[in-house]
Amino acid sequence: MSEIFDQINPPARLLMGPGPINADPRVLRAMSAQLVGQYDPAMTHYMNETMALYRQVFETQNQWTILIDGTSRAGIEAVLVSAIEPGDKVLVPVFGRFGHLLTEIAHRCGAEVHTIEMPWGEVFKPEQIEEAIKKVQPKMLAVVQGDTSTTMLQPLEELGAICQRYGVLFYSDATASIAGNPFKTDAWGLDAVSVGLQKCLGGPSGSAPVTFSERYVEVVRKRQHVEAGIRDAHHQDSAGQIIRSNYFDIPMILDYWGEERLNHHTEASSMLYCARECARIVLQEGLDACITRHQLNGDAMRAGAEGLNLKLFGDQDHKMTNVLGVYIPEGIPGEAVRTAMLLDFGIEIGTSFGPLKGKIWRIGTMGYNARKDAVLVTLAALENVLRRMGHKLPMGEAVDRAMAVYGQGQ
Amino acid sequence: MSEIFDQINPPARLLMGPGPINADPRVLRAMSAQLVGQYDPAMTHYMNETMALYRQVFETQNQWTILIDGTSRAGIEAVLVSAIEPGDKVLVPVFGRFGHLLTEIAHRCGAEVHTIEMPWGEVFKPEQIEEAIKKVQPKMLAVVQGDTSTTMLQPLEELGAICQRYGVLFYSDATASIAGNPFKTDAWGLDAVSVGLQKCLGGPSGSAPVTFSERYVEVVRKRQHVEAGIRDAHHQDSAGQIIRSNYFDIPMILDYWGEERLNHHTEASSMLYCARECARIVLQEGLDACITRHQLNGDAMRAGAEGLNLKLFGDQDHKMTNVLGVYIPEGIPGEAVRTAMLLDFGIEIGTSFGPLKGKIWRIGTMGYNARKDAVLVTLAALENVLRRMGHKLPMGEAVDRAMAVYGQGQ
Repeated sequence: MSEIFDQINPPARLLMGPGPINADPRVLRAMSAQLVGQYDPAMTHYMNETMALYRQVFETQNQWTILIDGTSRAGIEAVLVSAIEPGDKVLVPVFGRFGHLLTEIAHRCGAEVHTIEMPWGEVFKPEQIEEAIKKVQPKMLAVVQGDTSTTMLQPLEELGAICQRYGVLFYSDATASIAGNPFKTDAWGLDAVSVGLQKCLGGPSGSAPVTFSERYVEVVRKRQHVEAGIRDAHHQDSAGQIIRSNYFDIPMILDYWGEERLNHHTEASSMLYCARECARIVLQEGLDACITRHQLNGDAMRAGAEGLNLKLFGDQDHKMTNVLGVYIPEGIPGEAVRTAMLLDFGIEIGTSFGPLKGKIWRIGTMGYNARKDAVLVTLAALENVLRRMGHKLPMGEAVDRAMAVYGQGQ
Repeated sequence: MSEIFDQINPPARLLMGPGPINADPRVLRAMSAQLVGQYDPAMTHYMNETMALYRQVFETQNQWTILIDGTSRAGIEAVLVSAIEPGDKVLVPVFGRFGHLLTEIAHRCGAEVHTIEMPWGEVFKPEQIEEAIKKVQPKMLAVVQGDTSTTMLQPLEELGAICQRYGVLFYSDATASIAGNPFKTDAWGLDAVSVGLQKCLGGPSGSAPVTFSERYVEVVRKRQHVEAGIRDAHHQDSAGQIIRSNYFDIPMILDYWGEERLNHHTEASSMLYCARECARIVLQEGLDACITRHQLNGDAMRAGAEGLNLKLFGDQDHKMTNVLGVYIPEGIPGEAVRTAMLLDFGIEIGTSFGPLKGKIWRIGTMGYNARKDAVLVTLAALENVLRRMGHKLPMGEAVDRAMAVYGQGQ
């Protein structure tokens, strides 16, 4: 039976979960631009521009600031598999689900992975991480900046100096936090950073911007091998162990993005157009202004949630600006609330997993949806749903408190 | 210095190389649809529809017909890394660049790779492959169907029965050939197939449809491990060696696409919309009609090329419908011709690499560009450029010969 279905026509949704969120309409339009050839001067020019744009987003001078063609975890795997040789020690401070993910991926790369753990809802002090570094003496420290599973933002400012002191590569995944929270690649001494588009950058999942310090590149270049099918007589292999992945082989990908333009994959052009536009939107607003907007709308959502008589989750001094955890009130059916929000109001809020499964909701204010109207309609809808499910709350208070944060209090 | 550049605005190009080609405008429009949440019923419904559509494209009843989020080589790596345990023997018949790529990826997965090789421009006879299987006794036969580097199409019809006889997993990458040349997953006894969108499917690079037989799934399920961060008490690990990649771990990806909907990556929604529309376009035309159209336009381009007094490359009995190799005439500067085609006429034709570097051009007629007008303007432009570069040719003959193929001969 041949079934061809209808043209794509998704229902209208306001995505106020922990991401993905609605893409900025400008990003969607950018993706509808027609393709050019892989080595067309226009294409390589767009690749160079994309590098220049993400240098600004990452606050770095790193030459090697490129895209990995895949979702954000493709960026993570590329960073790890290219640097880690089997047996290398990697230290992962785990404070949520994405710390486990780094652990899991590093383990599959053959690393001897060491973890330190914090309860979900807290972050590490730099001295705790330094102590573990001293003990483990890892090749790399791999740490998530913002872990949406707990809504926590790990401070990174002091870790670069610590890593420098002990000769450790410093890598962070900032997928959930970039452009909504400060992130300073060079000032904080990072060697590798990976992100995705589907959070504060306001795009769809499917492209992973990454940036690498010279030190990181030096490490992975020691493992450089050129594909047999395109190898010329002058290509020489390096002494390091071959990287276990072809797709995620950073040295080869750099030679594709660099002057050499050596064929690797066929660049995912539409996703490159998309990533380029995400960066342009953030930079036109101004990176600092964009972060301030996330702070403002996150604060408004938090004030509103308190107005709904909801208890906040986690260490509020280390909360990401762009996602809020609130406890599901005793006796209120968490999933039924989410379903009513989605099917009656067209608004998605997030569930949670692991130790927080069934305990908290996660409400995002990020990217295109870090907007006053998005915050206010979410609060108004949630007030209605919670009241009808039997939750006691002061009527009208949620929106009023959010309004006060916007300077429109009565 | 902050540089934000202009909005995306690529130059008009007619892409008549070996791919990527111009995306069908319908595909570009589909990508501009707004996002919904990862577990929104609308999203999981679209995922299921995409599976149903690609079952038809692959001519298979395989339940497990999904997308890998990355370019076509992401699909290849996912197939190989999930099935191959270090030390497993893999046989790769190499007849062009992409055979080398399969070899290279299998090698990085830890396989003991055995190859047999044909000169570029020829294909294997089934008996040659059977003989190698007998000798090597591999776990898997991995073979490209259409290798754009040589324009050759390897016949696969008889290989499934051979693999069955010797208990070998049969995998083919059909990125360059699918929807432009017959490909019958079930009838030919394939266990795994990977493709990309950027050739005859008329989309951009960035999503890799794959399909797996029950036998393949059984093999990879033996290596199933669930991520620590989302593991429940009831999840049990399997006895097989853990798959060396998290991103390409097929058992985990199946649990995301399947009823369990266990979180893995965040699906690249825009690329899913895109892949879905690519399949809809092919199936609305009819898969057989689509292949016939590729045959017709490929024949017209070949007849036209002969009318340009160009010598054809490779075994014409085993040529892909959708790409043509022609020798660069003695004394004609190959790259200058390509540059004039691109910059004066806005038409891209392909260069080549490896042993064919500087020897042939590759001209594609695929996907949205497998059209009469695209063929005719390419031939007319190429006639002009070749003549001005000093190549001797009978004026007007190229278009006339192509016209004759379209049944419009004089």
